[in-house]
Amino acid sequence: MYPSNDPKLRSFIPVDPDSHFPIQNLPFGVFRPKAGGPPRIGTAIGDLVLDLALLEKKRFFKNFFLLPDLLIFSRPNLSNFMALSRPVWIDIRSQISRLLSGADPTLRDDSRLRGQAFYKQSEVDMLLPVEVLDYTDFYSSKEHATNVGAMFRGRENALMPNWLHLPVAYHGRTSSIVVSGTEIRRPCGQTKKDDAPDPTFGPSRMLDFELEMGFFIAKENPLGWPVPVNEAQYHIFGMVLVNDWSARDIQRWEYQPLGPFLGKNFATSISPWVVTLEALDPFRTSGPVQDPSPLPYLQNSGDRSYDIQLEVWLQGQSMPEPHRISRTNYKYLYWDMFQQVAHHTINGCNLRLGDLIASGTISGADPSSYGSLLELAWQGTKPIQLPNGETRVALLDGDRLTLTGWCQGDGYRVGFGEVTGTIVPAG
Amino acid sequence: MYPSNDPKLRSFIPVDPDSHFPIQNLPFGVFRPKAGGPPRIGTAIGDLVLDLALLEKKRFFKNFFLLPDLLIFSRPNLSNFMALSRPVWIDIRSQISRLLSGADPTLRDDSRLRGQAFYKQSEVDMLLPVEVLDYTDFYSSKEHATNVGAMFRGRENALMPNWLHLPVAYHGRTSSIVVSGTEIRRPCGQTKKDDAPDPTFGPSRMLDFELEMGFFIAKENPLGWPVPVNEAQYHIFGMVLVNDWSARDIQRWEYQPLGPFLGKNFATSISPWVVTLEALDPFRTSGPVQDPSPLPYLQNSGDRSYDIQLEVWLQGQSMPEPHRISRTNYKYLYWDMFQQVAHHTINGCNLRLGDLIASGTISGADPSSYGSLLELAWQGTKPIQLPNGETRVALLDGDRLTLTGWCQGDGYRVGFGEVTGTIVPAG
Repeated sequence: MYPSNDPKLRSFIPVDPDSHFPIQNLPFGVFRPKAGGPPRIGTAIGDLVLDLALLEKKRFFKNFFLLPDLLIFSRPNLSNFMALSRPVWIDIRSQISRLLSGADPTLRDDSRLRGQAFYKQSEVDMLLPVEVLDYTDFYSSKEHATNVGAMFRGRENALMPNWLHLPVAYHGRTSSIVVSGTEIRRPCGQTKKDDAPDPTFGPSRMLDFELEMGFFIAKENPLGWPVPVNEAQYHIFGMVLVNDWSARDIQRWEYQPLGPFLGKNFATSISPWVVTLEALDPFRTSGPVQDPSPLPYLQNSGDRSYDIQLEVWLQGQSMPEPHRISRTNYKYLYWDMFQQVAHHTINGCNLRLGDLIASGTISGADPSSYGSLLELAWQGTKPIQLPNGETRVALLDGDRLTLTGWCQGDGYRVGFGEVTGTIVPAG
Repeated sequence: MYPSNDPKLRSFIPVDPDSHFPIQNLPFGVFRPKAGGPPRIGTAIGDLVLDLALLEKKRFFKNFFLLPDLLIFSRPNLSNFMALSRPVWIDIRSQISRLLSGADPTLRDDSRLRGQAFYKQSEVDMLLPVEVLDYTDFYSSKEHATNVGAMFRGRENALMPNWLHLPVAYHGRTSSIVVSGTEIRRPCGQTKKDDAPDPTFGPSRMLDFELEMGFFIAKENPLGWPVPVNEAQYHIFGMVLVNDWSARDIQRWEYQPLGPFLGKNFATSISPWVVTLEALDPFRTSGPVQDPSPLPYLQNSGDRSYDIQLEVWLQGQSMPEPHRISRTNYKYLYWDMFQQVAHHTINGCNLRLGDLIASGTISGADPSSYGSLLELAWQGTKPIQLPNGETRVALLDGDRLTLTGWCQGDGYRVGFGEVTGTIVPAG
């Protein structure tokens, strides 16, 4: 097998050490050239996008075509590729790695082919990578759950009794999942102030982000058949950044007793490049100690988490550049992806190719690592300070909010790019 | 326009007065002949199924083919038909009505064609009629919400403060929506007794049904564009019966603070025949008085509901026949379908063709009209009596639970058939 994760591997394409897309990453995404043409699948390398559909049409990929005319990358989403299973994903990633390393001279020495196969990232529009069938949002950060619980129920009752025993989750909305860059229209809805007798209608005044990560299911389990925790990794294709936009005032009035609805389902943004578990493998790390020990079907050990640095940047309309408002890490999450899959299916619920499963807001212990404005500004009591003198307790029209994340290797980064969205006024 | 809803209209096919499928109904469903062949779309008439794909291939339908080779009924789901919009649905329904009335002799006088075009219902398997993209479950019965609230919070605080101001809802799971007849495997999961220090794992001991109805969205609204309440009817294709199976013990332990998850998402059953709003139109009726008056975006008046009689039947393994355990009516619902659509989209959330939106459990004021075992047996304190001396506070393995419903016309019924499911032991 080609050593795709070798930290010393370099591409003949120049890649900045801070780039999220060195040869050790090779994420998959769907793009359309701004100059025209159909959507297709590519990988990112440095500042470029490699058109995998073109390579496929030229039959550069070996061995994985069960049917010679089955096109995997000349598609508007990753479904056909994801359906091929882990051994094929690994094989294809190795082949792309060889081509980009220059060990195979095919691309390296053919300038005409390179001219056709590479696009600058600025020359393409990125599209939703996956047709999402069901979207589940977990609530797996102990710090986030504790913060929110403390605000609403006091420090003593911050965590619900079930929280340490199972990864709490709810179903979200798939229709309003949008790709990074999509404008976010401020939602209208009912809100009610505590001292008001009745609700009123209007644009949300407490618009917030939530810093999350999500993963896509590729291997399906039939209805009635749970996925054991130690097999869950074979069901997961890769990960993206997720911004679970939230209208706190709408949510607060509506959410009891059945959970969030209109306060969340107006938009969920995801980053366009799906980073595979293979690329993330060198960055596995242990998660937090779980005490009490979970029930057997949730017991997982070893390096069950990933060391992914995460940041939140905010740029108001009158700010010349974005300002970092939070730094946190995926590894702080109490419940891991494999436990999430095991729990989700323990009642027989079937996961399908394309399901998106998100982590819930990722907050660390330090206030500078909180993953939402609700927490950063502590329910409006501690407005965050911006460099131009402005403050925020909620997002304003014109604010551009960006999440980014990466794994830090020795001299390189395996990153997720960003998921960004700008708030536009209510319609 | 052909008088498809005329109560005096009769088909040349004999139809029993108690049949759910007279010529005034003409629901749409997807079936596959047990003898073989691909899934296709049909309508029900009496005890028969009319193969609309065959009529389409023989070009019996006029005017609605924008493209002469576009096949609408030779499909494994209703999506292509639903995409054609209300005027076309009405036109096609009129054409089917003419064919079945015998006013058009094409079918009536061609015994060979009739032999090809009709199947006994017992000769076909019914399939899921629609590829469901998003599934939303409302909570629109005041009596049900009051009953459940009273059990959990006491009579004084039974209804949450928001309940009379907005139709509460949450997102459900689409992957586990199954068609009537599918066996329901008892789910496993975590449960915790009030006096136990920790949760335990095992099969649910409090398996329940929920009597609901649902409707399918056909006309889409773009993200960011709410549907006004008085336009909502143009977005709805038709209705089905829904059984929102619930594991009360799993639900009770998991549901705070984000709502139901594993307690619900192991299965949701729907009836196979989609009854159109056109067929239901003669049975429109006023809904309950809404006090306080809802906010303007939710204000609806006139005959905003439907008079649909609903029943629940239970047959245990040792019972020779099913026993009716509840009778209720769709018209008891406080919030109507059009208000549900208006509320769902008021924040800009986009509904798509194929979305299923369910009512929530439908309970009436009288205890005999409650729509779940939780209420009928009042949280286990009043076991329901079955004719063979058995009692139930929850569903047992082998129990067959059937929901049925119909509108009663003068000498005919426009019905939904049934949605049924038998409980099989945990795996």
